[in-house]
Amino acid sequence: MKYSPINLKEKFEKFSEHWSPKIIAQMNNYHFKLVKFQGDFVWHIHADTDEVFIALDGEMIIQFRDGNVTLKAGELFVVPRGVEHKPFAKEECKIMLVEPAGTINTGDAGSELTIEENVWI
Amino acid sequence: MKYSPINLKEKFEKFSEHWSPKIIAQMNNYHFKLVKFQGDFVWHIHADTDEVFIALDGEMIIQFRDGNVTLKAGELFVVPRGVEHKPFAKEECKIMLVEPAGTINTGDAGSELTIEENVWI
Repeated sequence: MKYSPINLKEKFEKFSEHWSPKIIAQMNNYHFKLVKFQGDFVWHIHADTDEVFIALDGEMIIQFRDGNVTLKAGELFVVPRGVEHKPFAKEECKIMLVEPAGTINTGDAGSELTIEENVWI
Repeated sequence: MKYSPINLKEKFEKFSEHWSPKIIAQMNNYHFKLVKFQGDFVWHIHADTDEVFIALDGEMIIQFRDGNVTLKAGELFVVPRGVEHKPFAKEECKIMLVEPAGTINTGDAGSELTIEENVWI
């Protein structure tokens, strides 16, 4: 079939690890990525870009130094460039990220959680 | 509350007209827009940008000159720049678009459906 939709649920079934974004689509120089979150991520900053989180299943919290936001399924949030943040999820949740190709998950904060190169699924 | 999520369902309740994208978020120079589709749109081309369609509720078809793709809730498609296309929905469906700020809904095709400036909701 020449034109095929990208089914988010089917893509989520292709991986199980946490904190490891997988690329599902490219629009210009931006990537759409799926990621499963559970537990604590690291504090980090993306100095050069905003970052969009869209909760598709479950619930997550984005912590800031001066507050936080809870994202439930069907909710979206834009983390502005330069703002330090830390994702957290008590239970596994499924998220779509939108950000420029090449954006590193841990931003400025090197960590054992850093994924240098995201793979397509 | 300093940080608030953007709830897609609540945003959709704020308007009822078809083919009139409403901006809900900005990431760098890109807009996230919600739109309700029903019936036939016009054939058009976005010469300078890809365009992302994400079906959130219902079902739509993107027609191309040499095929088409059906998008159901939970599915995403990237229309490549320069590719002529025509959205269609038999029954009302709810879509999120992602594209550069200033992208005109009818692209190169002036029409009574053209919305020169999208509003925020």
